[in-house]
Amino acid sequence: MDYDAYRPGVLLDLDGTLVDSVYQHVVAWSEAFQARGYEVALWRIHAAIGMGGKVLVPWLLGRHVDDAEELSDDHRRRFLDRAEELRPTRGAAALVDDLERRKVSFRIATSAESDVREALLDALGRSDLASADADDVGAAKPAPDLLLATCAELDVEPEDATLVGDSPWDAEAARRVGIRTLAVRCGGFGDDRLLSAGADAVVDDPQELLGRL
Amino acid sequence: MDYDAYRPGVLLDLDGTLVDSVYQHVVAWSEAFQARGYEVALWRIHAAIGMGGKVLVPWLLGRHVDDAEELSDDHRRRFLDRAEELRPTRGAAALVDDLERRKVSFRIATSAESDVREALLDALGRSDLASADADDVGAAKPAPDLLLATCAELDVEPEDATLVGDSPWDAEAARRVGIRTLAVRCGGFGDDRLLSAGADAVVDDPQELLGRL
Repeated sequence: MDYDAYRPGVLLDLDGTLVDSVYQHVVAWSEAFQARGYEVALWRIHAAIGMGGKVLVPWLLGRHVDDAEELSDDHRRRFLDRAEELRPTRGAAALVDDLERRKVSFRIATSAESDVREALLDALGRSDLASADADDVGAAKPAPDLLLATCAELDVEPEDATLVGDSPWDAEAARRVGIRTLAVRCGGFGDDRLLSAGADAVVDDPQELLGRL
Repeated sequence: MDYDAYRPGVLLDLDGTLVDSVYQHVVAWSEAFQARGYEVALWRIHAAIGMGGKVLVPWLLGRHVDDAEELSDDHRRRFLDRAEELRPTRGAAALVDDLERRKVSFRIATSAESDVREALLDALGRSDLASADADDVGAAKPAPDLLLATCAELDVEPEDATLVGDSPWDAEAARRVGIRTLAVRCGGFGDDRLLSAGADAVVDDPQELLGRL
């Protein structure tokens, strides 16, 4: 495929895409569910990662529960307890450097809460990178609100933008508004799920994208 | 498909198939690698789960290392530290009960080390179930040695046996010797990988197999 076609605006998912954080999220959610007596299989939690927390809990439990916010808070605490384990995905820092060097217009697009976002940017070694605050932009992924807000910040039309993301929810949100998605495998999602959610191509990780955006 | 065709001998993988343990293994391996200065992406560790530990380490690192045994031991300790979190997969205990009630000949086929095997059987609530000792039967999955040894214990020919397993390495080992594989998704492996490794069918979890083996 022609990666040059994906300029001029690049949206970068953070969790799972630039930072190797999906499995820590899975385990932190599982612990939070177990602590409150909910039994949720870990593969199903993995399948939900990438959704905003407000959507993930009812999606996994099949209903709204009164302690959804406590669940999310507990997950966040447990995830942040593992912050020292977080590492950038292969090529993540180099990809950001490359976009900057070539003056490609890009922005982080994450629905992570602010403390999680800070921990992730810290792990990436790029605490200076700005992003829209997910809480300010409306519904979480797979709703496209955050992606549209980020396009507006970049001053690009959605059809001129490319999202780099690791989860089917990234691809689905992007497809809804005509943003193209380059998916990375490093979040542990299968090619079939990424492609059926609307990803335009799938590569291993940011290293494989380097210099091609 | 005709599940009845899969009798008379059933081999049950344990880790990830009857017990929801794959993500705990991924995190435990990641911690063990990090503690010794190896950087391995978590999605690649996930992709290797289901291999025996002796095969997994060189496969992931791309070379043989002197501290492979220490790595495996460290992983095992970290995994066992999380043993309290382990839960059966959906329908796992009921599937075993069902096979017993209908007098279908079956046996656990796991390459887990004995202490891990005990923790898993404990989580399943079936410490009484016997299995071949992986250390006694030769090479680990994806080599078929363990499966062949288990067939011999059951006194069935490989072509009359069915393996229920969650990983591509189960399916690959089975295919090599003509054992059919019913794969379950609850280990978090994608359908495409399971099918391309040789699985004959893919279902969510043991619950979905109940009464059909």
